[in-house]
Amino acid sequence: MSIPDVQIYPHATGAAAETVAKHQEPQELVFWAGWFCPFVQRTWIALEERGIPYQYKEVNPYKKEKHFLDINPKGLVPAVEYKGKALYESLILVEFLEEAYPTHKPSLLPSDPYERAVTRIWLDHIGKNYLPAFHRLLQAQEPEQQAKAREELYEAQRKLVQHVKGPYFSGETFGIVDAAVAPWASRDWIIAEHRGYKRSGAGEAWERYAKALAERPSVLKTNSDNEHLIPIYGRYLRDEAQSEAAKAIREGRAIP
Amino acid sequence: MSIPDVQIYPHATGAAAETVAKHQEPQELVFWAGWFCPFVQRTWIALEERGIPYQYKEVNPYKKEKHFLDINPKGLVPAVEYKGKALYESLILVEFLEEAYPTHKPSLLPSDPYERAVTRIWLDHIGKNYLPAFHRLLQAQEPEQQAKAREELYEAQRKLVQHVKGPYFSGETFGIVDAAVAPWASRDWIIAEHRGYKRSGAGEAWERYAKALAERPSVLKTNSDNEHLIPIYGRYLRDEAQSEAAKAIREGRAIP
Repeated sequence: MSIPDVQIYPHATGAAAETVAKHQEPQELVFWAGWFCPFVQRTWIALEERGIPYQYKEVNPYKKEKHFLDINPKGLVPAVEYKGKALYESLILVEFLEEAYPTHKPSLLPSDPYERAVTRIWLDHIGKNYLPAFHRLLQAQEPEQQAKAREELYEAQRKLVQHVKGPYFSGETFGIVDAAVAPWASRDWIIAEHRGYKRSGAGEAWERYAKALAERPSVLKTNSDNEHLIPIYGRYLRDEAQSEAAKAIREGRAIP
Repeated sequence: MSIPDVQIYPHATGAAAETVAKHQEPQELVFWAGWFCPFVQRTWIALEERGIPYQYKEVNPYKKEKHFLDINPKGLVPAVEYKGKALYESLILVEFLEEAYPTHKPSLLPSDPYERAVTRIWLDHIGKNYLPAFHRLLQAQEPEQQAKAREELYEAQRKLVQHVKGPYFSGETFGIVDAAVAPWASRDWIIAEHRGYKRSGAGEAWERYAKALAERPSVLKTNSDNEHLIPIYGRYLRDEAQSEAAKAIREGRAIP
């Protein structure tokens, strides 16, 4: 039986709470979210970057609304409800928003087919290498495992940053690769405090890139106060978390 | 040190050899391939379905051409070379071909943004659940592990097939989801012979879907003779294969 992650503060705080307050009116697009979830933040960043009108709805993980489960039986967040139908998966949502709201600029994907494919290659790298290494580091209990995961994370960061034009992935324009990475750049204080991680461990270029992402206004205004993240990440650090991502990492599987 | 997979027959045979022979002339698009690789076959199916002019080049895994490594340092196949630049990753290539050759019909992706997102959700499922289960089953040595992997594979197939309109994923039109699944439907005789797998284990709907995919002309004409696949898959069945996919499965990681 899956034990839900306890002590999740019930709603966004800090800058994110202000953003939530501005998005209470009903809209064609409903954004079903969890304030603490980095995958949610990816999609939220895209909504904010592109100025798409949306209604924010917090999903209480212990008491999911019937309507939400009706349209989205797996109950996953982030999800968007669009004309009565639900979609999920953070980066699929970002691409969906591109295609459903083509007139909302800036686009987060390049227009050239070759550049779009390169972008997707690096999104794939983030999903297959960067995130799993971050989560393995978070959950690793033995110093040896931690050192291994830390090195894998640095390696994944070094590979990615070689292709970052700066300050963002494609240059001056913030895009989907940046949105995909930013929530973890914004949360790396947790592994810095508890797992011996340093941004500079992956080199100066990564340090600059992570800083640029963490300071991006769309990232800042979707951040809640760190104090409420601490109990949530405490469970990851003790490897007790029961989220789907935590269980996948524990079992040596891909993050779902 | 990585030991390359031995006994790989040097070129395509059977129907695939005829297709290769028709694509020897220089073209704007070069398709760097390995005749035996199911990931290669995904992209190859897309090229054939859409009638895109391409030049087929077989990559000898023991002796990769300098030019190929120059443009594609990781040496991965499938890769396409387009105006002197390389791209890789099977499904990223299929999407790239959609975007770079928009006038070549049929398109393998729906045009409606919602339907496109649904398509991507199921591609994600295939990559995260269907393929890893197939490869775990192939490589599992203990009967207990095999039974577990077989059940996971059936489960992944049952989930997917619930969303297959029939005969193909989107109905009458063959599309990217079908291209993503077909190479493994076409190779499931290996797990049927050696791992107690039956298409009917995932239900009648899966049986029909797998048959429709395996009989699709674009799939048939990119298939080489089974006899040359046997030594390659023998190494997987003994869990001795050294491909990146085989190593990832062995280590409990996502297939790269």
